[in-house]
Amino acid sequence: MLSDIDVEMKRRGIDGLVVLGDTTLGNPDLTYVVGGSLPRGGIYLKRVGQEPLLLTSNLDIHTARRCGRVKKIMTYSDYDYEKLMAQHGRAEAYPRFLQKLLGGLGIKGKVIVAGRNDLAWGIHLASRLRSLGTEIEGEAAPTILEYARETKSTDEINEIRGVGRKTAHVVNSIVDILSNVKRRRGHLWIGTKRATVGLVKQEIGTLLASENLTAPEGTIFAAGGSSADPHNRGNPSDELAEGKLIVFDIFPQSDSGYWYDLTRSFTIGRADKKIRHMFDSVREAQEASLEILQEGLPADEAMSRACDVIEANEFRTVREVYEGKTREIQSGFSHSLGHGVGLTIGERPYLAFQSKDPLRSGQVVTVEPGVYVPRVGGVRIEDTVTITKQGCRILADVQKMLEI
Amino acid sequence: MLSDIDVEMKRRGIDGLVVLGDTTLGNPDLTYVVGGSLPRGGIYLKRVGQEPLLLTSNLDIHTARRCGRVKKIMTYSDYDYEKLMAQHGRAEAYPRFLQKLLGGLGIKGKVIVAGRNDLAWGIHLASRLRSLGTEIEGEAAPTILEYARETKSTDEINEIRGVGRKTAHVVNSIVDILSNVKRRRGHLWIGTKRATVGLVKQEIGTLLASENLTAPEGTIFAAGGSSADPHNRGNPSDELAEGKLIVFDIFPQSDSGYWYDLTRSFTIGRADKKIRHMFDSVREAQEASLEILQEGLPADEAMSRACDVIEANEFRTVREVYEGKTREIQSGFSHSLGHGVGLTIGERPYLAFQSKDPLRSGQVVTVEPGVYVPRVGGVRIEDTVTITKQGCRILADVQKMLEI
Repeated sequence: MLSDIDVEMKRRGIDGLVVLGDTTLGNPDLTYVVGGSLPRGGIYLKRVGQEPLLLTSNLDIHTARRCGRVKKIMTYSDYDYEKLMAQHGRAEAYPRFLQKLLGGLGIKGKVIVAGRNDLAWGIHLASRLRSLGTEIEGEAAPTILEYARETKSTDEINEIRGVGRKTAHVVNSIVDILSNVKRRRGHLWIGTKRATVGLVKQEIGTLLASENLTAPEGTIFAAGGSSADPHNRGNPSDELAEGKLIVFDIFPQSDSGYWYDLTRSFTIGRADKKIRHMFDSVREAQEASLEILQEGLPADEAMSRACDVIEANEFRTVREVYEGKTREIQSGFSHSLGHGVGLTIGERPYLAFQSKDPLRSGQVVTVEPGVYVPRVGGVRIEDTVTITKQGCRILADVQKMLEI
Repeated sequence: MLSDIDVEMKRRGIDGLVVLGDTTLGNPDLTYVVGGSLPRGGIYLKRVGQEPLLLTSNLDIHTARRCGRVKKIMTYSDYDYEKLMAQHGRAEAYPRFLQKLLGGLGIKGKVIVAGRNDLAWGIHLASRLRSLGTEIEGEAAPTILEYARETKSTDEINEIRGVGRKTAHVVNSIVDILSNVKRRRGHLWIGTKRATVGLVKQEIGTLLASENLTAPEGTIFAAGGSSADPHNRGNPSDELAEGKLIVFDIFPQSDSGYWYDLTRSFTIGRADKKIRHMFDSVREAQEASLEILQEGLPADEAMSRACDVIEANEFRTVREVYEGKTREIQSGFSHSLGHGVGLTIGERPYLAFQSKDPLRSGQVVTVEPGVYVPRVGGVRIEDTVTITKQGCRILADVQKMLEI
């Protein structure tokens, strides 16, 4: 939550926090503190215990005001950035400008400079600021902002639920289309066209657009053997075929910057016994982990629960790797159970063996066990849920059925 | 160009270059050296004069091989990252892992760590690496990778041209739709719906999807008064009206990571004399700057040329701000002439007063003069061009006409 920023600054002995970037795109920390998108980014400065200050370009100031999260917003020109550029040149003006701003806010102690930017430039910036007398600190994960962003406010959860509702529309529409494929001359047809992965992906794109969503990281729609690779996005020329596994993993982002993550796996027509067993095992693993998720549960226990179920169904799991028994598994449950979702599609907390931290109320995580069998295909079932005091709540309801 | 990396490493006395990130999304330097997208990112390491090494997760190794740019690709597990995590914990394992990899490649001199990542974390990483004995250097702009990415290979230009062709399709389709609006009961209609900015934006989204493009930074379709703010994206509820200015600025990205940038400004139906004068001035300014663009021209001279024309047409320009005569201008040509386009939508070179560097063959830049008059609206005309020895070439042809 936003209010964690001050709490964590105090706890960690940090006097000043700077979040910066030349765009909010792909800069979740900056989007978070600004409360929206700024095409040309900005500089957010906060002294512990005080209201923050946001600087933007003249072109973005109206947009910044509409974002509404920071009350005091000024332009670079208001603080004579141009004069510093004329005096010191472009490269040297920036650290001097920051130095001047920090001084103006009375920040004298440890300062953190955050935001997603080029590291080579950031490391240079830190060393220039240090020469100018600022005490710059680095942060090991979780940074103050990662920690704050980890628990979502009611507004944020509603925003994510909204993205979930739209995502569910897209998935339901695609399932509708697939339930209406025609069988003709040994192929499956959508309307007058062969049912290929590429055609379905185009439909997904159109549906996303009509919901005002984008998919900056693409969409996984993998059919048959390629679904056995959890991150294969699907080969456009692959034809859909009856009884073959399809993994449909969709992770769109809305204008607000928030994401949603949802996976369904199915076959068109009848699935054989082997596939049915994969599906039932994954579904049982998801239900078992959903059942125990709640505030206070160590994250790795959810992962462990999912592995228990999958192992009881005679599939291998990544626990073998974690326990050092093997380097990698060639089939079975080969990834972690889940990850946080918010202004990024992969953030804290992680439902994985390495994560011992207890879950916190307001976290939003995916729960996505999977089983992959080379040459056969994969089954993954994924929902995005929010952690509560008593349990967890799925943020968008979509049917889970194997055969469509 | 990719080959500039080695040249610049030598010239700047750098022994090792590391480019890293937990995703290639929003990480153009990593996308560039990898030659494609890796959902979970990776670590690219290069010793000066030697072939690079790329490490990815087990899940992404097949994708990384398909990217094809790096020949030697391994997984983290191949270098026992898990063991380091078990020994040192997650946070400390990473710098130790990098240290081990750098040692393995025989890198002993200055090392640059690049890639778009959280600065607070990066500054911590740099200080840990320094304690472990690595000589980490920062970079003022232009970094080695910015410099390399500034000039595009023939393949890259073809890729950008491809995005341009698809972008042109979208723009032409929207112009078609707008030439067929109906006038009824004092409103404009598209089919049976009122012609609003929101409706047009939905069409744009659908068209982008059908071209397999996304618009991660949105699209500007600003009508009437809101077009007077160069970065107003357009108010969905605004109705289109005859004779009012519309600025349509579209900047989509393709799967490959490359962007295109194109703007047209027009009125539906007749434009009045004042608007016609704005349009003609901007068009003349664009033509005049396109005429002089070529290898060797100092970038600021193109900017200056556009201002000459716009000032001769009695509009104010940002030159007044650059020359310190005023802090900002309230109307006229209030931004720079252009910026580079590639794996980002705003990169070097900049066609601006501050940029004295001569243009280089293979650069891809926008040429986008504009004139904005509060309450009336804006006109901006923008094409993306590549710089050549003899001049420049527009990468996608789209008609420039005021009235549609």
